[in-house]
Amino acid sequence: MNAHTHLVARYFDAWNETDAVRRRALIAETYAEDARYVDPMLESQGHARIDAMIAAVHERFPAHVFRLSTDIDGFGAYLRFSWDLVGPDGGVAAKGSDFAVVDATGRFASVTGFLDAVAQPA
Amino acid sequence: MNAHTHLVARYFDAWNETDAVRRRALIAETYAEDARYVDPMLESQGHARIDAMIAAVHERFPAHVFRLSTDIDGFGAYLRFSWDLVGPDGGVAAKGSDFAVVDATGRFASVTGFLDAVAQPA
Repeated sequence: MNAHTHLVARYFDAWNETDAVRRRALIAETYAEDARYVDPMLESQGHARIDAMIAAVHERFPAHVFRLSTDIDGFGAYLRFSWDLVGPDGGVAAKGSDFAVVDATGRFASVTGFLDAVAQPA
Repeated sequence: MNAHTHLVARYFDAWNETDAVRRRALIAETYAEDARYVDPMLESQGHARIDAMIAAVHERFPAHVFRLSTDIDGFGAYLRFSWDLVGPDGGVAAKGSDFAVVDATGRFASVTGFLDAVAQPA
């Protein structure tokens, strides 16, 4: 088991948590204070802005969940893993891959996401 | 065509160049002065050390070449692309994927490599 399995599991828990209080706790557990998240459509830095970003994704994709779709590959402080964004009907709305850097406290210093596939609107 | 196609082509030219003078010129063209390269087996920072690292790979894998094996995907300053390390017999010795950050001068500030597959010794 990769040393960062727990971190990545909690990272997806944060993305999927709809309770604001629990989500803030998960974000604090998984991201450094000044952590930066960036992907082709989103960008944020720091716990409060990451929280607002995730809340906005929940508004855009209600009842969807992010699920790890690959093993976690990594070495040293560098990780990569992929995910599916799954809708309430079980359909995959999007697939992506994240590249992440872990800091000395064991939290993400940065996460850079790439899109692997996006479902076409029906 | 991705805006960084030329940069990535020159990056592979640098990896494949066996002439020391031409390789140093390609490294200066593609990497920032203090650029950092890291993968599961190699790590170097700055033009001179990147050059020594590539020379060491040539000693380890004589007559092999790195070839881009995917499109270049990216947004903003962030790129990802994959490669094959091809031996003189045409066999693929290793496959990998690089995640790179481009600086304001259009050169790599950092490249982080992951291994996708490694051929078993015969």
